[in-house]
Amino acid sequence: MASSSWEEFFAVHLPPPDFEDNRSLLKEFCERHDQYGNKIVLVTSGGTTVPLEHNTVRFVDNFSAGTRGASSAEYFLEQGYAVIFMHRQKSLEPFTRHFTGQKLLDMLEIQDRGPNTTISVKPDSVDVLAPILLRYKAAHAAGAILHVSFTTVSEYFWLLRAACECLANLGARAVLYLAAAVSDFYIPKDRVPTHKMQSACGAPIIQLHLVPKMLAPLVNLWVPEAYVVSFKLETDENLLIPKARAALEKYKHKMVVANLLQTRHHRVILVSPDISQEIVLTREEVHAGVDIESSIVCEIVRLHGCHMRLAGEPVSPPRSPR
Amino acid sequence: MASSSWEEFFAVHLPPPDFEDNRSLLKEFCERHDQYGNKIVLVTSGGTTVPLEHNTVRFVDNFSAGTRGASSAEYFLEQGYAVIFMHRQKSLEPFTRHFTGQKLLDMLEIQDRGPNTTISVKPDSVDVLAPILLRYKAAHAAGAILHVSFTTVSEYFWLLRAACECLANLGARAVLYLAAAVSDFYIPKDRVPTHKMQSACGAPIIQLHLVPKMLAPLVNLWVPEAYVVSFKLETDENLLIPKARAALEKYKHKMVVANLLQTRHHRVILVSPDISQEIVLTREEVHAGVDIESSIVCEIVRLHGCHMRLAGEPVSPPRSPR
Repeated sequence: MASSSWEEFFAVHLPPPDFEDNRSLLKEFCERHDQYGNKIVLVTSGGTTVPLEHNTVRFVDNFSAGTRGASSAEYFLEQGYAVIFMHRQKSLEPFTRHFTGQKLLDMLEIQDRGPNTTISVKPDSVDVLAPILLRYKAAHAAGAILHVSFTTVSEYFWLLRAACECLANLGARAVLYLAAAVSDFYIPKDRVPTHKMQSACGAPIIQLHLVPKMLAPLVNLWVPEAYVVSFKLETDENLLIPKARAALEKYKHKMVVANLLQTRHHRVILVSPDISQEIVLTREEVHAGVDIESSIVCEIVRLHGCHMRLAGEPVSPPRSPR
Repeated sequence: MASSSWEEFFAVHLPPPDFEDNRSLLKEFCERHDQYGNKIVLVTSGGTTVPLEHNTVRFVDNFSAGTRGASSAEYFLEQGYAVIFMHRQKSLEPFTRHFTGQKLLDMLEIQDRGPNTTISVKPDSVDVLAPILLRYKAAHAAGAILHVSFTTVSEYFWLLRAACECLANLGARAVLYLAAAVSDFYIPKDRVPTHKMQSACGAPIIQLHLVPKMLAPLVNLWVPEAYVVSFKLETDENLLIPKARAALEKYKHKMVVANLLQTRHHRVILVSPDISQEIVLTREEVHAGVDIESSIVCEIVRLHGCHMRLAGEPVSPPRSPR
């Protein structure tokens, strides 16, 4: 089954209902940071869904908690970038990712005194919480991070193109860090049943179609001057580097971050047209809770600096309070 | 495609790795509350996944944030029940469901004084947080709630059967409130490919199989004396009541909570063998943030009381601090 073209995809799939609101937010965010000569990174994060019914009860999903994207966003902020955090609804988010489940509630103690009741963080939790809370508040006070969210693969593509349209003005100062786990497959709109599939009718057969490769128009047409990083997640080591190299040759972007599902939290390979560079956390670093994303982002920031110099951009510190 | 029998399903699908730990937790919890003559409700919540690959990158998922289950668990606690909260990993949970995303972080303020730094909840957020925090701490201090989690449909079935084995001893004092959105379909273990499906091989066709209906052995064999409530979510109003009635006739359990995807947060129909009872929230109640689960649980607790009396159980307040 041949994949449809990207133009066809946008012609057939309508924009999501909140699309214009999100487009305005993206536009305002990019213009504001562009004014100050800031660098902006678009971080995409989490998996996309492919609905199996219009009134969606069932869908095909891609595995991704959003750990990579959420933690990378924090490190880009630390490096002085403005961050568009485009994430799957309810996937992990920067800062809050440290306190999933009941962790924050368990840190609180209550002094129940009727109308004078107070609630505070237990003294032994302050050390953990304070540095994260300070960075969270600083990022929000500076307007340095914008959250936009998607669920389906079609919503993702609409948001991605809109973000690119806004980022194009920044030229080489834009980084695209495409960590979202985007479905390779989808079911064209006209083949999706309206109501929930009935088990009484027997088990269904689902015919999936290939989604168009958006990286092609993205690199060539939408943000031709940006520093574009894509991700390749495989489960078979033998396919990893060949597939990363093939993607670079096909799409002509700057880097593929290659990783295996089984070892992705402590090993990645940064594959560029010229070199491959392995980043591995030691056992001690893993135990100490070091995020591998801190090293990935650090290296990408360095290479993005080179990219900007080649493009004739001044690589100076940002002029806004960012 | 005929569905396999439930015995066959358990024979083919191995228990999950953490199964014995969870079984011990369930056993200890049920024995402790049984000792005091407490009532226990098993609340299942969230959707199950069907992996499309052994090294799971892709899976079919069922829509469910876990709102119904998480809020119902709170109301059962309020009514003096001990609660087994069996939920999809990362779906909503009781108490924390009120503070998703950045809500809790935004309630905090920090007094940054180096080693004497303190963090407290802003005074205007204390009113919202205090009552929930007090109920959360009381439930945990009393050991009145046990969390166990699943991801795949096979993990769900293993946990469900283990919980039933522990609940059987409670006879009519057990309630099963099966709100999880369990897949009707799955892919038998031997048909699942080991590695990530490659898009270069073309778009795949997925052949799904019907899962066995576990409600049959559950009602007849596992917990024959318990008060069993199942849920029916449809998108087509015309199918809703006929399908709920058909389920009751087929499985002979006590109640189907029938709801439409589109209106499920403000309208449900409690379908019993004798009567149907509609619960609808008014527009004012919806705006005031009233949970429809408070009414659903209240009615089920009343009917469960009748069920216990018929079974000759004393309907007295629990003897433990629960």
